[in-house]
Amino acid sequence: MVSKNQIKLITSLQQKKYRITHQLFFAEGVKVIQELLDSNFELEHLYTTQYDFEEVSGAKKSLIHENDLKKISALTTPNSCLAVFKIPQEREIATSGLIIALDDIRDPGNLGTILRLCDWFGVEQVVCSRETVDIYNPKVVQATMGSITRVNVAYLDLCDYITQTDLSVFGTFMDGENIYKSNLPQEGIIVMGNEANGISEAVGELIKKRIAIPRFGDLQKTESLNVATATGIVLSEFKRNFA
Amino acid sequence: MVSKNQIKLITSLQQKKYRITHQLFFAEGVKVIQELLDSNFELEHLYTTQYDFEEVSGAKKSLIHENDLKKISALTTPNSCLAVFKIPQEREIATSGLIIALDDIRDPGNLGTILRLCDWFGVEQVVCSRETVDIYNPKVVQATMGSITRVNVAYLDLCDYITQTDLSVFGTFMDGENIYKSNLPQEGIIVMGNEANGISEAVGELIKKRIAIPRFGDLQKTESLNVATATGIVLSEFKRNFA
Repeated sequence: MVSKNQIKLITSLQQKKYRITHQLFFAEGVKVIQELLDSNFELEHLYTTQYDFEEVSGAKKSLIHENDLKKISALTTPNSCLAVFKIPQEREIATSGLIIALDDIRDPGNLGTILRLCDWFGVEQVVCSRETVDIYNPKVVQATMGSITRVNVAYLDLCDYITQTDLSVFGTFMDGENIYKSNLPQEGIIVMGNEANGISEAVGELIKKRIAIPRFGDLQKTESLNVATATGIVLSEFKRNFA
Repeated sequence: MVSKNQIKLITSLQQKKYRITHQLFFAEGVKVIQELLDSNFELEHLYTTQYDFEEVSGAKKSLIHENDLKKISALTTPNSCLAVFKIPQEREIATSGLIIALDDIRDPGNLGTILRLCDWFGVEQVVCSRETVDIYNPKVVQATMGSITRVNVAYLDLCDYITQTDLSVFGTFMDGENIYKSNLPQEGIIVMGNEANGISEAVGELIKKRIAIPRFGDLQKTESLNVATATGIVLSEFKRNFA
């Protein structure tokens, strides 16, 4: 059973302000929930339609009817389970290795895909401008497919961050140097820009190393690359010599 | 004004069987419609809420109220215009250059993103297994952002196609050769597999050149790459020496 108050609380967590108030977020589906349970995330409560997740104690688990799951789910087609977790304290930001910096990424699917890519390429730190979509947005949590447990994400002022770092800062620009011919280090910060506007002017002025993914199609017409796809190609280039 | 019959026809085009019956599909949004108008696609009718698209004759254009646009749109938040186009005859399949072959891609967003990537990397031919999502699905048309006008897409039996081609056939497999160390030609067919199951067994058996994108993160846990992201990385590798 799930009470009216619980339904109200959980649906409110689709909004960032209530996630901040309650310091809670939720995830859906066996795979993502299992990864969160296996990590350092602290479970608040699990709602499931099946007698599963035996490792979770009865006090933290409720059997829920499909119709009630629909009421609390953020998905069009709800999965079999939904779990509320505590938002962990922000961890210290890594100061070495390869770091992805996101300048106002708005689409939850893009942020989730980028975290999945970071996980694949062994990038452990992502820093986001404060305007970037919240990592605990249910759509982001879903799109990360569990990578949220392995990549450290911090929100900060990107200009301050770049000004204070000792690492080389790279950014992708239409007029940047051909990435295939650039000398790419093992360590550094790679800035990826907003879906519609690219890297903001203020951040762009602080970037010394301007790189570009060359375009092979019709130069007049071809659309720009999607930011998540571009991040994949850029990470692949940074990592390929160390595989 | 848009009649009840027109509304019924247009909404039916969200389903493949009615697109086949009527040999029509629709696109939404100024950018995509403009690209289709500028290409060889033949306009059936344009519905717009604004006095725009001056190049389209009055007979093929109707001013439509926002509320009616909502009725015919496939989008949650409709754009300002929707246009119905004729499905063109399938063009001859290219037998040279780099060709992407898709083995049962189900997600419209993935197919759209892959076409956008092909457009960027100058790949002019995509061949799809018959189980791959239809290119004239409204969500695919939207996700291509106009690339649908520049990439030739054919549906066929992939096994027959691979058996009959003279080109080298590459496929991505978990146990394939490190793509960063492979010798990749300028011409060839690259097979990308289904989101959940990868390349099917029947197709896989016909592929001589098995490649893999190395994984750098936690080998036990990291999720597989999304197929669109993987296509981007693979295309970048095939093209990087020719930039």
